[in-house]
Amino acid sequence: MNFDGFFNPSSVAIVGASARQGKVGYEILTGMIKAGYDGDIFPVNHKADKIEGLKCYPDLESIGQTPDLVIVIVPARFVPDIMKQCVKVKAKNAIIITAGFKEVGEQGARLEQQVSQIAKQGGVRIIGPNCLGLIVPKSRLNASFGGDLPEDGTVGYLSQSGALLAAILDMANAQGIGFSKLISIGNKADIDELDIISAFGKDDDTKVIAGYLESITDGNTFVRQAEAISHDKPILLIKSGGTAAGAQAASSHTGSLAGAETAYEAVFDRAGIVRCSSIKQQFDYAQAFAYQPLPKGNSVAVITNAGGPGIMAADAVERQGMTFATLNEKTIKALEENLPAAANCHNPIDVLGDALADRYEYALNVVLDDPNVDMAMVLLTPQAMTEAEKTAQAIVSVHNAKPDKPVVACYLGASKVADAIEILRQGKIPQYDSPESAVRTMKVMADYIRWKQKPKRVVKLFSVNRRKVENIIDRHIRQGIREISEMESKEILEAYGFVTPKGSVATSASQAVSIADQLGYPVVMKIWSPDILHKSDLGGVKIGLRNAQEVTDAYDLMMYRIPKAMPEARIIGVLVQQMCAGGKEVILGMNRDLRFGPLMMFGLGGTMVEVLKDVSFYLAPLTSSEAKQMLISTKTYKMLEGVRGQQGVDIDAIAEALQRLSQLVTEFPQIQEMDINPFVVGKAGTTPVAVDARMSVEKV
Amino acid sequence: MNFDGFFNPSSVAIVGASARQGKVGYEILTGMIKAGYDGDIFPVNHKADKIEGLKCYPDLESIGQTPDLVIVIVPARFVPDIMKQCVKVKAKNAIIITAGFKEVGEQGARLEQQVSQIAKQGGVRIIGPNCLGLIVPKSRLNASFGGDLPEDGTVGYLSQSGALLAAILDMANAQGIGFSKLISIGNKADIDELDIISAFGKDDDTKVIAGYLESITDGNTFVRQAEAISHDKPILLIKSGGTAAGAQAASSHTGSLAGAETAYEAVFDRAGIVRCSSIKQQFDYAQAFAYQPLPKGNSVAVITNAGGPGIMAADAVERQGMTFATLNEKTIKALEENLPAAANCHNPIDVLGDALADRYEYALNVVLDDPNVDMAMVLLTPQAMTEAEKTAQAIVSVHNAKPDKPVVACYLGASKVADAIEILRQGKIPQYDSPESAVRTMKVMADYIRWKQKPKRVVKLFSVNRRKVENIIDRHIRQGIREISEMESKEILEAYGFVTPKGSVATSASQAVSIADQLGYPVVMKIWSPDILHKSDLGGVKIGLRNAQEVTDAYDLMMYRIPKAMPEARIIGVLVQQMCAGGKEVILGMNRDLRFGPLMMFGLGGTMVEVLKDVSFYLAPLTSSEAKQMLISTKTYKMLEGVRGQQGVDIDAIAEALQRLSQLVTEFPQIQEMDINPFVVGKAGTTPVAVDARMSVEKV
Repeated sequence: MNFDGFFNPSSVAIVGASARQGKVGYEILTGMIKAGYDGDIFPVNHKADKIEGLKCYPDLESIGQTPDLVIVIVPARFVPDIMKQCVKVKAKNAIIITAGFKEVGEQGARLEQQVSQIAKQGGVRIIGPNCLGLIVPKSRLNASFGGDLPEDGTVGYLSQSGALLAAILDMANAQGIGFSKLISIGNKADIDELDIISAFGKDDDTKVIAGYLESITDGNTFVRQAEAISHDKPILLIKSGGTAAGAQAASSHTGSLAGAETAYEAVFDRAGIVRCSSIKQQFDYAQAFAYQPLPKGNSVAVITNAGGPGIMAADAVERQGMTFATLNEKTIKALEENLPAAANCHNPIDVLGDALADRYEYALNVVLDDPNVDMAMVLLTPQAMTEAEKTAQAIVSVHNAKPDKPVVACYLGASKVADAIEILRQGKIPQYDSPESAVRTMKVMADYIRWKQKPKRVVKLFSVNRRKVENIIDRHIRQGIREISEMESKEILEAYGFVTPKGSVATSASQAVSIADQLGYPVVMKIWSPDILHKSDLGGVKIGLRNAQEVTDAYDLMMYRIPKAMPEARIIGVLVQQMCAGGKEVILGMNRDLRFGPLMMFGLGGTMVEVLKDVSFYLAPLTSSEAKQMLISTKTYKMLEGVRGQQGVDIDAIAEALQRLSQLVTEFPQIQEMDINPFVVGKAGTTPVAVDARMSVEKV
Repeated sequence: MNFDGFFNPSSVAIVGASARQGKVGYEILTGMIKAGYDGDIFPVNHKADKIEGLKCYPDLESIGQTPDLVIVIVPARFVPDIMKQCVKVKAKNAIIITAGFKEVGEQGARLEQQVSQIAKQGGVRIIGPNCLGLIVPKSRLNASFGGDLPEDGTVGYLSQSGALLAAILDMANAQGIGFSKLISIGNKADIDELDIISAFGKDDDTKVIAGYLESITDGNTFVRQAEAISHDKPILLIKSGGTAAGAQAASSHTGSLAGAETAYEAVFDRAGIVRCSSIKQQFDYAQAFAYQPLPKGNSVAVITNAGGPGIMAADAVERQGMTFATLNEKTIKALEENLPAAANCHNPIDVLGDALADRYEYALNVVLDDPNVDMAMVLLTPQAMTEAEKTAQAIVSVHNAKPDKPVVACYLGASKVADAIEILRQGKIPQYDSPESAVRTMKVMADYIRWKQKPKRVVKLFSVNRRKVENIIDRHIRQGIREISEMESKEILEAYGFVTPKGSVATSASQAVSIADQLGYPVVMKIWSPDILHKSDLGGVKIGLRNAQEVTDAYDLMMYRIPKAMPEARIIGVLVQQMCAGGKEVILGMNRDLRFGPLMMFGLGGTMVEVLKDVSFYLAPLTSSEAKQMLISTKTYKMLEGVRGQQGVDIDAIAEALQRLSQLVTEFPQIQEMDINPFVVGKAGTTPVAVDARMSVEKV
């Protein structure tokens, strides 16, 4: 959609404008005037002739022309009528500030429904209702009651909380952060977070997209579009509030390990969105992305006039997985020749407590020329000789002369560095209140550039027997059976190229022995019942049975014990299965998130999965490198590579299995959750085996 | 020692006082005068008669009386002579600001050595050298060149970085944080961090101890004394800088998992010290401990005028493991009766965007009366109607009327809430810049009170065969053998009440079979060599051997393969051992930290210990509850309790084993590191077995 009418309207009507101080209709009208908006302002109020010197109109029609933007402030019950007026005068863009809709309950929700229906049919786009409004500094448009017009800048901000936006405006003004647009999205009756993010994506004045969200309306579309936008502009989001979506009882390990937070983490990872935990952190990041170039890598050089903060910076670099740049010989030599003998000419470079601006300037210049340095951080504590302001000016001018590498500053102190910090701000050098915050910001920049540079996502399609899976799933759904048995789960997996152990179900001890004889010893036996999901919990799994006697004993013991432990379970028999020895046990799984679709899981398998929780999640469909990355991001990966004399296993085979599974759950949205546990994998070249599996399906 | 002469001197001599602006000797003298110090000030400078109107003395002797405190600013090479003068005039307390000692290398270290020797022999105590000095606001004593005298308050601060102290002073002044004392400890030639912390512990004016440290001089004493002081006053430390202490190659799992950071974490845990990751965080915590009572538990109530920040607070409470208080019925009823219908009367309490001060006041009053609430947090965003200042006054007066529960505030914004924040500061209500920081602070308070309330530490002493261990260890040390063999390690363990599997070393296949026959099958076989530490890496461990044939095969395979893999290894034979089946494998270990002594480790055992790293560390000697806590703080604990139908194991037996091991390593400081891995433990009532063990010893 086109946001021109919102962002750069040539005329604005204010329906509900008021002459009474303290009323929202007064605040918005006077705010518009005060901001210096130079289009036409049409106050609409049938009780007044003039407000603040502007001619007042009884309704939209009587204006005699179509306002580009209509701001609605009248009480909720009058809003449907105002919408009808909008349609009549062919107004296309409305901001409904008024509260009292969906957020107050059933009746309000109906009213909101009515309003959006009128708007939709009449072609009016709506921001709100129940919002704080819209601010566009460049257009000098303050269609909000959030406060004074902030500085013009390159950060586009959207907020699902109006009250928070007021605080953000106040904080940004104090920190000198400028905005291209600020939008309070309220109840999202029409325009939602994705519309705004997309608009920011296309907006030439917006370089950084930031926002506060509590919910995401359309998860699937959000992921795809946000991913595309992230390639152009960083998206920095505060996402607050868990949801009850995970409350549905999970029957799989994967389901019980996948919470709402997991899904959001996976979505943000995939879409390259930077998650912020507080407004302060968001501003920390925003100023760096807005004012500095992206780094080429993650090597940091630190220049300091005090040892302590230098060590704190080094600690932060190590803790956050960044790299302390190894300065090259030329740099070290240049520093040694030009800094005092007592100075430390290796990273972190200590220019000493009596350093004036010139030492900083020299060091920063030299360091930025070093090809081993991707970004630089200048630390300063206000000591007796320190030239805080002159040093700030030096940093700004060095950066302007060498603008290709990001430079950030960390001036520790308050009143003694306040003027210098102002110089840094004017000069667009991000300033942080601790070495840790500065390093965290540099890490976020380095992570973002790495994300951007990933190769284009290509999802491989395997040739599979889709028809067979369709038959099994359809039958379950027709019969209203949610859980698919182990046997049929394995048939589904086989149709997608998995290998499962050979075996059959025995209904007597002698049949069990004859099956075992055919398979060859040792064998595994598992109780076979549609009602028992966690078989080992009840003693329903015996492994390593080596002869007919052990098979007979196991059969009889299960038949004796399990009905006692779980009388209501329907027991069909006992599965006798080949034993897979000599591999590592991992788990592959999927849980379908209500908003974002299938979430793949990989981790250390066996019964310990929920205890050790060494698992990783990612959104399907998976590319080959994403599948590999899922493996790498677990501790289990080291074990798979081989430790302590044990041979490594076929890692590519696991990655391929994850991709096949990802294809299965993408092609069959009916599958709600599933585990393959254990998935036994051996050394490179061997075929991994899906030893146990469960799945549940639902009609979609 | 007595710090009166430092903290409250009746006269101060400034040796190296200068009349020249910009010189440290000038800054300190004028700083002293400006601060309003009302004792005698004696400038010492043989070139001047008068400085700043004060009579100047050529040397300490000519003053004619003994100054309580001597501040030394002369160049390093003159300092020994000044020390001699101090001794001569019987001065007891000196602060050596001068740099150019240990920190500049070998020659400086010698000079420092000389200075401290003179001082020690003459009974002069020294702060410094190479420090910023000392500030005592209450005595109006500014014996430093750090800046203006800060506000008087209850935080005692010590810093190992002078430059950082200057920044801290500046930040504290801006935030209105007051200090009882600020001390820059410099090179710690005499008085070290522990002396200062102890002095703060005894100082009536100090309520909170805070500091920045890079190293700890005497680890053992530090732990014991800091622990005692923490019971009275919270100690908040920034500890920066890793050390190379862990660099010594480790032969045990425990050694390779225990880094320098681990030791500090364990020490801080044990001593109840609150670790801070930045100055901002330290100030966040300090103001809460200084101004608010300690909470009784970890239940938090939140009052807000906006939904968004309320959700952010709720997220933080959940993420940081705090509890959201469940308000009792009386509270909810009172809120429902007195707040508007749209307000949320459950936690987080939303008093709505149009709330004036009265709603906040009412809600806070009611909430503090609720026995389910341990502490309260008031969130405010500056909206159109908000009475930020009046609300701040209300918070202050409610807290003063009900001072037993901590109350913290989080006013979001900047200029719009600046005046209100000043009111909160004056009223001693801690104020935070994000809900997250506020919640983190409350968590730290709750953790501290829990630590304080732990029962007194009682270390159980087991009856053991100490003599036997002594013999083995002494022989190794005499012969210069660092690694103790598995066999003798187990003898040591047996002497301390451990059970080890039966077995003997065979030097031929037939002998192996005859040992196995005696033990009964199945058996385990392990290659037996003083040179092979990680046996399974080389295929030197075979388990589950079921008959004579398998034992013979295993013996011959090891004798064929291992000499090929490691030709230089001396192979004595093969250990044939009882097989322990049916238990869980855990690891017990110890690594001796250079500064803090034996660091016990517990975790998931087997070959995966270094991959999964599910381990916990604590300082020996362990009490029973500390041993138990080590278990609980791993994920493995859940497995030990029993998951998915598996029976739990004897947890108390593991805790006892840890205590026995702790006694062993405490009684034998020669033991440098050790592992028992696996330590196999079965269900309650069974005897756990130390299946494999290694130890290394050194002369001490």
